[in-house]
Amino acid sequence: MLNTEKTMDKVVSLCKNRGFVYAGSEIYGGLSNSWDYGPLGVEFKNNVKRAWWKKFVQESPYNVGLDSAILMNPQVWVASGHVGGFSDPLMDCKDCKTRHRADKLIEEQTDVAPNGWSDQQMMDFIKEKGIKCPDCGSTNFTDIRKFNLMFKTFQGVTEDAKSELYLRPETAQGIFVNFANIQRTTRRKLPFGVSQIGKSFRNEITPGNFIFRIREFEQMELEFFCKPGTDLEWFTYWKDYCHKFLLDLGIKDENLRLRDHEQEELSHYSNATTDIEFMFPFGWGELWGVADRTDFDLGQHMKHSGKSLEYFDPETNERYIPYVIEPSLGADRVALAFLCEAYDEEQVGEKDTRVVMRLHPALAPYKACVLPLSKKLSEQATAVFSDLAGHFMVDYDDAGSIGKRYRRQDEIGTPLCITYDFDSVEDGCVTVRDRDTMEQTRMPIANLVSYIEEKIAF
Amino acid sequence: MLNTEKTMDKVVSLCKNRGFVYAGSEIYGGLSNSWDYGPLGVEFKNNVKRAWWKKFVQESPYNVGLDSAILMNPQVWVASGHVGGFSDPLMDCKDCKTRHRADKLIEEQTDVAPNGWSDQQMMDFIKEKGIKCPDCGSTNFTDIRKFNLMFKTFQGVTEDAKSELYLRPETAQGIFVNFANIQRTTRRKLPFGVSQIGKSFRNEITPGNFIFRIREFEQMELEFFCKPGTDLEWFTYWKDYCHKFLLDLGIKDENLRLRDHEQEELSHYSNATTDIEFMFPFGWGELWGVADRTDFDLGQHMKHSGKSLEYFDPETNERYIPYVIEPSLGADRVALAFLCEAYDEEQVGEKDTRVVMRLHPALAPYKACVLPLSKKLSEQATAVFSDLAGHFMVDYDDAGSIGKRYRRQDEIGTPLCITYDFDSVEDGCVTVRDRDTMEQTRMPIANLVSYIEEKIAF
Repeated sequence: MLNTEKTMDKVVSLCKNRGFVYAGSEIYGGLSNSWDYGPLGVEFKNNVKRAWWKKFVQESPYNVGLDSAILMNPQVWVASGHVGGFSDPLMDCKDCKTRHRADKLIEEQTDVAPNGWSDQQMMDFIKEKGIKCPDCGSTNFTDIRKFNLMFKTFQGVTEDAKSELYLRPETAQGIFVNFANIQRTTRRKLPFGVSQIGKSFRNEITPGNFIFRIREFEQMELEFFCKPGTDLEWFTYWKDYCHKFLLDLGIKDENLRLRDHEQEELSHYSNATTDIEFMFPFGWGELWGVADRTDFDLGQHMKHSGKSLEYFDPETNERYIPYVIEPSLGADRVALAFLCEAYDEEQVGEKDTRVVMRLHPALAPYKACVLPLSKKLSEQATAVFSDLAGHFMVDYDDAGSIGKRYRRQDEIGTPLCITYDFDSVEDGCVTVRDRDTMEQTRMPIANLVSYIEEKIAF
Repeated sequence: MLNTEKTMDKVVSLCKNRGFVYAGSEIYGGLSNSWDYGPLGVEFKNNVKRAWWKKFVQESPYNVGLDSAILMNPQVWVASGHVGGFSDPLMDCKDCKTRHRADKLIEEQTDVAPNGWSDQQMMDFIKEKGIKCPDCGSTNFTDIRKFNLMFKTFQGVTEDAKSELYLRPETAQGIFVNFANIQRTTRRKLPFGVSQIGKSFRNEITPGNFIFRIREFEQMELEFFCKPGTDLEWFTYWKDYCHKFLLDLGIKDENLRLRDHEQEELSHYSNATTDIEFMFPFGWGELWGVADRTDFDLGQHMKHSGKSLEYFDPETNERYIPYVIEPSLGADRVALAFLCEAYDEEQVGEKDTRVVMRLHPALAPYKACVLPLSKKLSEQATAVFSDLAGHFMVDYDDAGSIGKRYRRQDEIGTPLCITYDFDSVEDGCVTVRDRDTMEQTRMPIANLVSYIEEKIAF
């Protein structure tokens, strides 16, 4: 038996070697925990974003989109609580001088999740359980100190405090501060939602696990505004909607877990929160946080900006601050989940395995690859390629045996391989080979576009 | 005669009122020159980016895509020359203490373009011509001082110099540092190109003209690598390709100007550079810079990183540093050009004008709007909407007279309005009204998807 176990190492190595993800600034020795999406990675991640946008904007009768700036007025982060409270609880090891997150030390060494614990509770627990420095084994820690996770920068030509700005740590606030503008210009009535995809930045002390936790990351957030009292109903609606999104794109239900936050774990303003977690090769990791945040965010901005963010309900003639349901998803994280889920090594002979990325066809970087059986057919095969490239991302490969070319496409998740052979010149047909079943079907070139369209539908 | 002149004010006002673009952080008094794309703006800008990607990646037999990180190893910016030389020539008015760009003062007050001038040349010219402070009229300026345009930030938990990073001022360097990785993993032979869309940041002292010059902006850049000696040929190829892209998306040739840089205006390493400029309501502005940058960029990174970025040419058995052609386009800028080009006020009666955004259908935020003739038909009309929303961004409007609804859609550039009336229930047909011709056609609901697809093709 060959070892066909799925490991992070194998997924990461495939990503680096096939052009999904490279280490950032690699020729300069990299930049801690920064990653670049290569030619296949950018197509794949764009497909993830497009699938989300399709379900959370285009097909939703409730939602519209937004693309707000990364740099915002710093008062936004005062109102949101990020200036005051967005920090990691860090402890230094007095012996080896390394720095650690107190909550992570507890989680990693005791399997206890210190959600909602105070600093004092964590310090007491660490002492009591004799939790050790993972680097040197010492138990000689400093007290917890808080470090704000926002990246700071300066606008204008001097570095004085007046022009201090932050790189946004989340896309959500861009939606809240635009609530009134969006409601006015779209003339929407409640309930309605605003969806946004964009970069956020968090100065994490312990990033890691490839693209799971990175400092510069991309979020896909929905803020869904509804009438107070209807919020728990909508919370359930969106939780189910998110769950279904993952299932429909090929994540197996056995690899998903919906973890409802306990009462003591909830933020003081939240009526309900559920984390949707995925079983990565390194263990369970959060993908989607779905939270009922009541009127907290709009209320904070109303207080700090002095502008009314109330909604006038034409049905009841009342004014109130809408409640909000927030399903918040990391694009890089869910991309990693899809890659891990899709990775498969299949034994195809006694001593042979093939690596197949079983990506949902809607997510695959290339929808098809055109393979001329011989270089003599390159002119005709190129014409097929050009025709298809007007509709989809398509690859072209004329190097090596057909079997080798199939394997290369399997490894990057291409759903269909289209072989153009000498008969094709006469009969206008090609052989289409399916990534998953490896079955081959002969079909007219004229049918390819609709056949692929059907295959990749989502 | 009504005043149907096209002005920036009119375009900006439409953008703000219809949800294309809002002032950033508006409820907090804004943040100087930051803008958020609203529900229509994000669709429109995504369409601009998609059109570019289709032509510069998907349909190109030469190019692949990339999405590299905004935060890079700071050595990248030493190698690229940005740490040393990426700065604005600023002068302070000693009387009113305002700060100005020397080159802009010259341009605005004399119509002379001081391209490639030294600081001394500019200071001499400003004295000689008696150029005045635009704020107070004084001619009492300080000497020119240089301020680096890169936004700085800090990674890690302390603000020491070791962890100083920059927000990238251009996406191009992300391509250059990945050249070897991309070439290796895609097994491409020269010539080939790498295309990237992403945010860049420049700490401009004088941003302005709405989304024309902003501090946080999005670029669409291609770096096209070719064999030295073939570079001028490829330069012409890509210059024409870019020009055609703008024409095909509806920019009139009379509003475009291709300005070749004179010998003394060229960077020392550039063999040729052309700016493609557009006639905005405020005057000519650069859209696209197309430059033959020879082997400068790869050569710099080779020198600074110590890694070989040479290409082994299997046809000639030679090793050499590829030359590069760089067509660099601002996404916000070209989006503004499309908006300005599209804005039209058409006189439709003696005292009536309609505002029409004559956007190319591929760029229009909504491809169609479904209008039930009566609210009694909302169930059936919603079914039409849902069916179309599986394929395209579609709007739904049931408020006010059909005429009013047409006008609302004209103003946001929706190519087609689909009216569902009482006959539709019987005959399965709807009335499709064209934005530009205002002609109405009756057609089966079953034909809508293919009709719209054809309409929006690009």
